[in-house]
Amino acid sequence: MPNRTELANAIRALSMDAVQAAKSGHPGAPMGMADIAEVLWRDYLNHNPQNPDWPNRDRFVLSNGHGSMLLYSLLHLSGYELPLEELKNFRQLHSKTPGHPEYGYAPGVETTTGPLGQGLANAVGMALAERVLGAQFNRKGHAVVDHFTYCFLGDGCMMEGISHEVSSLAGTLGLGKLIAFYDDNGISIDGDVDGWFTDDTVARFEAYGWQVIPRVDGHDPDEIRTAIDTARKNTDQPTLICCKTIIGFGSPNKEGKESSHGAPLGEDEIQLTRERLGWKHGSFEIPQDIYDAWDARGKGRQKEQAWNEAMEIYRREHPELAAELERRLNGDLPADFAARARDIIQATNEKAEKVASRKASQNAIQALAPLLPEFLGGSADLAGSNLTKWEGCRPITRLDPEGNYVYYGVREFGMTAIMNGVALHGGFIPYGGTFLMFMEYARNAVRMSALMKLRSILVYTHDSIGLGEDGPTHQAVEQLTALRSTPNLETWRPCDTVETAVAWVQAVQRTEGPAALIFSRQGLPHQNRDAAQIDAIEKGAYILRDCESTPEAILIATGSEVGITMEAAEQLSAAGTAVRVVSMPCAERFEAQSPEYRESVLPAAVRRRVAVEAASKDFWAKYVGLDGAVVGMDSFGESAPAEALYQHFGLTPENIVQTVRNLG
Amino acid sequence: MPNRTELANAIRALSMDAVQAAKSGHPGAPMGMADIAEVLWRDYLNHNPQNPDWPNRDRFVLSNGHGSMLLYSLLHLSGYELPLEELKNFRQLHSKTPGHPEYGYAPGVETTTGPLGQGLANAVGMALAERVLGAQFNRKGHAVVDHFTYCFLGDGCMMEGISHEVSSLAGTLGLGKLIAFYDDNGISIDGDVDGWFTDDTVARFEAYGWQVIPRVDGHDPDEIRTAIDTARKNTDQPTLICCKTIIGFGSPNKEGKESSHGAPLGEDEIQLTRERLGWKHGSFEIPQDIYDAWDARGKGRQKEQAWNEAMEIYRREHPELAAELERRLNGDLPADFAARARDIIQATNEKAEKVASRKASQNAIQALAPLLPEFLGGSADLAGSNLTKWEGCRPITRLDPEGNYVYYGVREFGMTAIMNGVALHGGFIPYGGTFLMFMEYARNAVRMSALMKLRSILVYTHDSIGLGEDGPTHQAVEQLTALRSTPNLETWRPCDTVETAVAWVQAVQRTEGPAALIFSRQGLPHQNRDAAQIDAIEKGAYILRDCESTPEAILIATGSEVGITMEAAEQLSAAGTAVRVVSMPCAERFEAQSPEYRESVLPAAVRRRVAVEAASKDFWAKYVGLDGAVVGMDSFGESAPAEALYQHFGLTPENIVQTVRNLG
Repeated sequence: MPNRTELANAIRALSMDAVQAAKSGHPGAPMGMADIAEVLWRDYLNHNPQNPDWPNRDRFVLSNGHGSMLLYSLLHLSGYELPLEELKNFRQLHSKTPGHPEYGYAPGVETTTGPLGQGLANAVGMALAERVLGAQFNRKGHAVVDHFTYCFLGDGCMMEGISHEVSSLAGTLGLGKLIAFYDDNGISIDGDVDGWFTDDTVARFEAYGWQVIPRVDGHDPDEIRTAIDTARKNTDQPTLICCKTIIGFGSPNKEGKESSHGAPLGEDEIQLTRERLGWKHGSFEIPQDIYDAWDARGKGRQKEQAWNEAMEIYRREHPELAAELERRLNGDLPADFAARARDIIQATNEKAEKVASRKASQNAIQALAPLLPEFLGGSADLAGSNLTKWEGCRPITRLDPEGNYVYYGVREFGMTAIMNGVALHGGFIPYGGTFLMFMEYARNAVRMSALMKLRSILVYTHDSIGLGEDGPTHQAVEQLTALRSTPNLETWRPCDTVETAVAWVQAVQRTEGPAALIFSRQGLPHQNRDAAQIDAIEKGAYILRDCESTPEAILIATGSEVGITMEAAEQLSAAGTAVRVVSMPCAERFEAQSPEYRESVLPAAVRRRVAVEAASKDFWAKYVGLDGAVVGMDSFGESAPAEALYQHFGLTPENIVQTVRNLG
Repeated sequence: MPNRTELANAIRALSMDAVQAAKSGHPGAPMGMADIAEVLWRDYLNHNPQNPDWPNRDRFVLSNGHGSMLLYSLLHLSGYELPLEELKNFRQLHSKTPGHPEYGYAPGVETTTGPLGQGLANAVGMALAERVLGAQFNRKGHAVVDHFTYCFLGDGCMMEGISHEVSSLAGTLGLGKLIAFYDDNGISIDGDVDGWFTDDTVARFEAYGWQVIPRVDGHDPDEIRTAIDTARKNTDQPTLICCKTIIGFGSPNKEGKESSHGAPLGEDEIQLTRERLGWKHGSFEIPQDIYDAWDARGKGRQKEQAWNEAMEIYRREHPELAAELERRLNGDLPADFAARARDIIQATNEKAEKVASRKASQNAIQALAPLLPEFLGGSADLAGSNLTKWEGCRPITRLDPEGNYVYYGVREFGMTAIMNGVALHGGFIPYGGTFLMFMEYARNAVRMSALMKLRSILVYTHDSIGLGEDGPTHQAVEQLTALRSTPNLETWRPCDTVETAVAWVQAVQRTEGPAALIFSRQGLPHQNRDAAQIDAIEKGAYILRDCESTPEAILIATGSEVGITMEAAEQLSAAGTAVRVVSMPCAERFEAQSPEYRESVLPAAVRRRVAVEAASKDFWAKYVGLDGAVVGMDSFGESAPAEALYQHFGLTPENIVQTVRNLG
């Protein structure tokens, strides 16, 4: 039986070999954290390599994602379907082993990491999901949702602001089954961190209400074990285990230095490292006894089997709960959801309310939430402005986790990355609100939700100069463009209550990625539509108002500008111009329609096109081309009442009419 | 002589009256922090209301910018050119009193605040600038740069991640003349913060190495004075003064509650508040004795006069230093800068190096830095990747602040907002680097620099799939679009060493806003140009390769795709197609050219246009219209060597040629 150091050295050997083969990568962190990983994975981690989707597995997140070879080594050695060939193809096209761990590529990768700090946030989200799902479904004698979330993180994660946001919230919520390991190696890319990072991290995390275990020797398995035991015992507080480690451990000339961080060690140094470590095996060569000691398949099968048996008893005693838990873990919507959603949209249309679309959004939430116990709502301290709460929503607190609404505090980035963790965990559809402008604070987490194709719903209100007096710092101009240019993300900007209800339903039904729902602060008129038009909303763009003949001009608008565009069309029509109005709540969705449908809405031959949106103009060149025009924003906004700003910036029916006429 | 409370009540009265008149705004914070502000502004703040630009003034930043009426009241009462009429026009179009303090609107507003946490970051930047400028220019007996930076901040600022980044760095750098006041009122928009914010803030900031003064009664002038005295005495550490306050202080029914935070109190409640406060004056009415007690003009004139006299002596003893300090404070470039810059560009062209544009950027920095002692360089822990250092750059440390390079650590948002503070302070041209992707972490600070039109230079390397193996989390796709859609920002993506040198020079010379400089990781060929073409680079787009006749097709490219586009043009030309290649390093700059110039580069009649860029396609519709095409990215990237990715995603000469042919 190999000893612990030999088992850890297998990680070191694979990591330095793979990085060398790829001619790029990060050997330092895997070599530094190998001993911690060995103890955690072999002695504690509940997982089944044969079923990476086992719902009750412990979650493991490598927040310092550049150390991907640590994770790939662990997965390979533990018996996941990640053969040695994949490790040899580290960082190559079509391999399962990209440079950073990418969700959906290798089995057992719980989240995509690399952008620092966000892995920790995802882990907080997973721990939150576990706690809330457990509170909702566990019953006396039946802890069917019961796992730990472990997270590795480095100095970079610690320096990033998001680590503050999510650690602070995790402390407040008392997420006691979250256990984080800080790889305190004193080195970041620019060298010894003393020059730019001198926090007392122990005191900092204690200030967040965490249990902190200081000064653990990250190369001493006994100390690591003791720390993990202490961490697991305290389920009232999250735990940070501060591990002193040596980056690039084992490399005679590079350990403890930044030179081991982000580049191959080099063949000569690898040879010296093998000698120092006493690793007598060739490149990518792992002896069978090491494989055997790492193999987690037998234990994993037993663990899952035991859980399956527990679930069987739970299912007998609580059949409805069990069915509901399974539905939610599968990510299935209730069987009657589509039919009920149609009813909601129909009823919304019949009411024909003139309200702000943020209020329309709240109406939609109010209608959908009773159907969707998987909703996990929230806002970054703007509940009353984003209108993200509904009657019967219940806040999640440290002492009462059986709720469905999170007060995230003023933490937009943290909220969004936590929502990603919740979505990854399963059992919930998270949504969270802030002002559209402060999407920017969360921007990279929005991108990560799109990259991972998560069902996360981003609620952004106060979407333009229409928010009025708060002024340019709060008035979105270019933010819609940023969202629309993000692959896999669908951005909806509905113009009234009906489009809002459709947008919400589409966001809930979408399984291929997140949706951003964009809402106004100000009141918007209801638009009349026939049944076919209502059905067409989900196509992303449709003819809201048409003319008898071929249009002489087409007006394209979204959200709060649809109303004024309809007024412009009225004026143009009265003056004898054949004009069509296209409402385009979701351009991405429209792009996914057939060429025939798109041609039917925007005929190629009609070039006199004007797009109207209180936002950056450039995006609309895609639809109006070189011969059309855009009525939109060329500058930042100003502080004034909304009506004054719409006049000031020319977002008026009169200016739209004039713009059409100027096109000749 | 009115007492302190009466003086503070003048702020309360003006704030509640102005918010009421505007029918929107935030009375709670001004009413809660009025006593602190009264002590600070009347007893300590060195400033001259008649000259808001006096270089050695203390800086005051209201990081909780929604409390703008606090600042407007202070400016008005102290004697700045902000008449009562402007306060009555709070939040109206064309007033100097927008909803949040906007830099450049009212005199004495040092920075635009509102997006929470960034004011604190700006203050850190100002304190950093003061410290470094002082180290560079002060001489024995001549402390000509010597002022404090004061910052007010609330719970929202404290929760935001950026507060962690910048406070941590401020502690490491020992910015002892930074004094922050935490408005610890226990309330945020969603209510009592206990549900989402339970940090031990004292312990947290002590962990950053700050001096923290806990439990100050924010309504007791004596306690406030004692705290400020303690803060000012310690110049080795920044100080946080934790002030317990009551939000909406004085409002009988709303103080201490979130209802006083972000809405008018209402006429009735205002009346009750007047009674409670003993404020017997009418709406917007300030008695003369209160004005007299607040008037800071006399003292301010004396303070500035004393400094002017000290400068006079300094000027006699150190004439060159004094002239240089004045030049730098004025933001003027050295007199010979333009000529030297031309030489640099010329020399760069003659060398004709084939290097990565990040290396070309370092060459430009190396050439420019000796001319520009105002450079304050830095990187968010990627110095060796961004190539932001030059020979002779010198790190700024706690013990040696007389440098010109900041190791910002892994803190992109903090870095960018600190740079904004440095630029606002004056005396420096800050630049800072990270990967283009991690611009997203800093995104709203980039926007703030554009909104304030600051000369801040954003260096973004590793700009596309061309970075290769690090994969999709690191490969920019939609980020260029986000930058280009930002008003006032110029985004340069140069294709070789010559365009890179021009981009740097243009960024340095620009006084109307920031520049983002986008560089490749991978090597790029040198392009041959004649003198006229070199001169045309600064126009943002120009003809790099032309044909004899009217072009049958125009290819438009930027950065790393110019080289492959030139190859495609070679193939098309060889096959008999008359093709023009337009290099467009800066679209915003091109848009600012005359219609004649733009037509000469992109003739309206030529519709067979193909844009080529390893990024989101939509932006290019602006130039290729409905009849052209874009060779670019439709999805996120992948992890693989750069060459493999360029093939995989079709960014090849062959695909460009085929795309032109497909246009018929």
